[in-house]
Amino acid sequence: MWVTVRDLVGSCIKLNWVTLWAQVLYDFTAEPGNNELSVKEGETITITNQSIGGGWVEAQNSRGEVGLVPEDYIEVSYIVSVDVKTPTPSLGNVAASDLSFFDAYAPASTPATNGNDPWSAWNADSSGGSTNNWASNPEGTQTGKSAPDPWPPVSHGHPQAYQGPGKKTKKTPRDSFRNHGCPIIRTLQRGGSHATSMKISLNKFPGFSKSGPELYLLCKQLVKGKDRLPIYMGEVGPVWSYPETQLDCVVADPKKGSKMYGLKSYIEYQVTPSTTNRPVNHRYKHFDWLYERLLEKFGSAIPIPSLPDKQVTGRFEEEFIKMRMERLQGWMTRMCRHPVISSSEVFQLFVTYKDEKDWKMGKRKAEKDETVGVMVFSTMEPEAPDLDLIEVEQKCEQFSRFTKSMDDGVKEILTVGHEHWKRCTGPLPKEYQRIGKAFQNLSSVFTSSGYQGESALTDAMTAAGKTYEEIAQLVAEQPRKDLHHVMETNNEYKGLLGCFPDTIGVHKAAIDKVKEGDKLVAASKITQQDKVTMAKRASTMSYALQAEMNHFHSNRIYDYNRVMQLYLEEQVKFYETIAEKLRQAHSQFTTM
Amino acid sequence: MWVTVRDLVGSCIKLNWVTLWAQVLYDFTAEPGNNELSVKEGETITITNQSIGGGWVEAQNSRGEVGLVPEDYIEVSYIVSVDVKTPTPSLGNVAASDLSFFDAYAPASTPATNGNDPWSAWNADSSGGSTNNWASNPEGTQTGKSAPDPWPPVSHGHPQAYQGPGKKTKKTPRDSFRNHGCPIIRTLQRGGSHATSMKISLNKFPGFSKSGPELYLLCKQLVKGKDRLPIYMGEVGPVWSYPETQLDCVVADPKKGSKMYGLKSYIEYQVTPSTTNRPVNHRYKHFDWLYERLLEKFGSAIPIPSLPDKQVTGRFEEEFIKMRMERLQGWMTRMCRHPVISSSEVFQLFVTYKDEKDWKMGKRKAEKDETVGVMVFSTMEPEAPDLDLIEVEQKCEQFSRFTKSMDDGVKEILTVGHEHWKRCTGPLPKEYQRIGKAFQNLSSVFTSSGYQGESALTDAMTAAGKTYEEIAQLVAEQPRKDLHHVMETNNEYKGLLGCFPDTIGVHKAAIDKVKEGDKLVAASKITQQDKVTMAKRASTMSYALQAEMNHFHSNRIYDYNRVMQLYLEEQVKFYETIAEKLRQAHSQFTTM
Repeated sequence: MWVTVRDLVGSCIKLNWVTLWAQVLYDFTAEPGNNELSVKEGETITITNQSIGGGWVEAQNSRGEVGLVPEDYIEVSYIVSVDVKTPTPSLGNVAASDLSFFDAYAPASTPATNGNDPWSAWNADSSGGSTNNWASNPEGTQTGKSAPDPWPPVSHGHPQAYQGPGKKTKKTPRDSFRNHGCPIIRTLQRGGSHATSMKISLNKFPGFSKSGPELYLLCKQLVKGKDRLPIYMGEVGPVWSYPETQLDCVVADPKKGSKMYGLKSYIEYQVTPSTTNRPVNHRYKHFDWLYERLLEKFGSAIPIPSLPDKQVTGRFEEEFIKMRMERLQGWMTRMCRHPVISSSEVFQLFVTYKDEKDWKMGKRKAEKDETVGVMVFSTMEPEAPDLDLIEVEQKCEQFSRFTKSMDDGVKEILTVGHEHWKRCTGPLPKEYQRIGKAFQNLSSVFTSSGYQGESALTDAMTAAGKTYEEIAQLVAEQPRKDLHHVMETNNEYKGLLGCFPDTIGVHKAAIDKVKEGDKLVAASKITQQDKVTMAKRASTMSYALQAEMNHFHSNRIYDYNRVMQLYLEEQVKFYETIAEKLRQAHSQFTTM
Repeated sequence: MWVTVRDLVGSCIKLNWVTLWAQVLYDFTAEPGNNELSVKEGETITITNQSIGGGWVEAQNSRGEVGLVPEDYIEVSYIVSVDVKTPTPSLGNVAASDLSFFDAYAPASTPATNGNDPWSAWNADSSGGSTNNWASNPEGTQTGKSAPDPWPPVSHGHPQAYQGPGKKTKKTPRDSFRNHGCPIIRTLQRGGSHATSMKISLNKFPGFSKSGPELYLLCKQLVKGKDRLPIYMGEVGPVWSYPETQLDCVVADPKKGSKMYGLKSYIEYQVTPSTTNRPVNHRYKHFDWLYERLLEKFGSAIPIPSLPDKQVTGRFEEEFIKMRMERLQGWMTRMCRHPVISSSEVFQLFVTYKDEKDWKMGKRKAEKDETVGVMVFSTMEPEAPDLDLIEVEQKCEQFSRFTKSMDDGVKEILTVGHEHWKRCTGPLPKEYQRIGKAFQNLSSVFTSSGYQGESALTDAMTAAGKTYEEIAQLVAEQPRKDLHHVMETNNEYKGLLGCFPDTIGVHKAAIDKVKEGDKLVAASKITQQDKVTMAKRASTMSYALQAEMNHFHSNRIYDYNRVMQLYLEEQVKFYETIAEKLRQAHSQFTTM
């Protein structure tokens, strides 16, 4: 399941051994069945795994009990380095999430991962509100503006190692309480884990290096066989191997299920793949399991977008279920469209398992998969000559620039769209309603004049007034018909783009590693052969990144073409409907 | 020019003689050539005419100099009644504008007129801004909401005498300074005079009664001859005598003129009546002169709407001149449409004078016209049997109710329309612009992708973005094309309706007077014959009011029919244009 220490040692990486003690800052009571550990304020615990992600660490108390503790509840007191080769910074009183470990091969150049999510803004978007709807959660986009920027500055000409996301301001649980007004930290922290994207896979080696691509660049033997992922040279450059018919999935028919004699209830969705046309049932937590597996396995090479956020309260509300289903559908569609993901064993299991036993066995197998994290590159085989480092570096820079710009562009659309949504559903229809009422009021005053023969006017004025009330309704309902799709698409892309800083970070770290090659050879840390292997593997990583970017581009073109057409089509209908209504209202007036 | 004291005495009304002394509250420096009087704080002056209107009184200082002083600058200290018949309330330290005078025949039943304009809200609308445009002067309509209501409460079943407009909160000049931020009280006060409507004619008897209809009800001899204004019974009830072809006037071609060797410049408009088709030139001050004459002569029977407000600063700006011309045109059109006004000697003079000499002579003659104020009813001859008092009263109540309701309805439309105007020219187009920019930005990011063959998408997205920028402009320009006319028409009607409380007040006062008939006969104040005459004349007044209401109704139906059609027509065009633009934008996307 985990890459063993022996594997790591075998790949000739020197390690720092550290032991972490932590002071518990606040009482925390474990939730039964969640593998959590109850701790008391003031207690001292040992961190056994600080790379759980999502704001959790694994810890052991003085009685030897092991379990998960929220990292915001503890403060790391001492770090003892037992490494004899390189000095480890000795940190006193730093929060667990601020820790950054180094090994000899990744000095400050690996992404400084921490439990806090660099895309907290994006998370806040969906975890704060009760309906998971950005439109009803204006804080989301606002937070987006002030949130720390996870994108490294794009360097021109002098590519530098990716320094990792900027240091985050650490939030205490009290902050969380203050910000959210209720003690749902557990939920929020868990929710946050969905956007930590590939950090989990990079961090999955307990107590060690924050990984970096060395594991792959210098590993002795590459995986061979059925897992092989070829990269072809297509018209647009490197491309994945696409299946002849694209898998598609329908997520539908959400049903309330229950277990434990009705004590626990949940929603089960029917997932029907186009290949078998046989529906399978999945709860949200199964989707979440799949997401974790995909992230673990492919996250270094392929951006795996977050699932629609988990939510505890109000999750049986019809509107919420509908919205979640729509977003699960969107997520599944995107996964189905990806040739590497849709053809993977774990994904196929998810959509085509035969029975409960099949599912359970498949789950166990997937969880034992060792070709995860950066090791996924070991399965990739570009059918093209190796690239030189300069080309690899240029591509990486280009993708970094592009994804950063697109992230900005997408966020702009979300902000503007959100503003427009608010106006269209708030003040604008109210105003049309008032216009309608004002015309009708004046019409009824006219009716009271006692003057003969003005019913032609008053009837027409009343009709005009009613027309404006109808327009008010049309205006208020319109965003759900058109803007909604623009927002959903851009929201999806915001999620996808949010995975790129980490993906690109891995590539930059690999490039740096290759650049260090001569120095490492001179210092006898690696052999000349190792150096050649590293360059070759960096080339493979670059082909993978290019194939992924080309996949991203073609999907992007398709998605934006589709959504813009849909939007404009609905907008045309909208304005035509209003014009037609007004034409009818106009025709009721008598020409004089 | 003025009705002489002899005339009044001759019409057998007993008068209260009062002398007013006033204390000067603030220094006031006379503007040369404006017939003003400079006064110093603390000085005592005698009020020689407190019925000037527009916030001015005529006063005499201790040196015997006479001139106009702003009533807000003085405080009336003593009132000495020299009447021996009825006690006059002795008021100490009341502001001039709060004064209410009574005579034996109009105890508390005449409109309590004061120098302050009951339609201050309406004035504020147009006198505050620099362009006379309600759209650029949001304070106008807002003030309208909180301004005191000049309308008497409509009584049901138990008609009561019109009690006059509610007591206004007196503004000191300091308030004016504070509110307007600059020392332009003079201008504002003068501006205000245009909306005092007929009060000037009711108050034109210096130092005396606030008039009331007694002058007409009890006058010995009625005017006969060419001034006769017949009232016919039409299908809808009493109607004025309408000419076969309706006079029309075109106000056009504003030209800058100057006099005093270029020291003083002004704008001259060309007024061309449809009858002669020969243009005559008039400055704004000539229109103002005409307005004053019409108000003086017809104001008791016919609502004479204010002219577009006088303005001192920026009056040569093109936009202002255009707007004023449009409003002068609207005012002239309304006057032309009125059979009584358009056929009057003074109006005919204005539109058809032959030369400067003709104009000057006509002016002098008009200013000497004695059939003004309530005496205009003496020229009216209904060709129908006399109405009984109950019917007169019912009609009066009905018109009062209707005009009050319509005033509310019109103000509602103005408020709502103003809000809508602000949104359409402010935040809404900005939002469409931002949407357009966001699409274009994303499109240019896409262009930088380096991916082949996406120019079809990016070109289409850029076009869509530009379309939204065009829509922004359409939205911002639209109010001038449609809402503008709705606002102008309702603004005109607001002005017209603002004249009704006074018109109806005169009628209510007449009704009260007739009701007192028996009592007055018993007290030997009038003869039995006087009583009969009064009832007959009240009937004539009612016919005039009904003819005027019918004229108002038919114009109202015409105007609202026209403006609603115009509005809806332009709205249809607007939405169709947008739909067409979006359809074109949509067609640029390639179907996939």
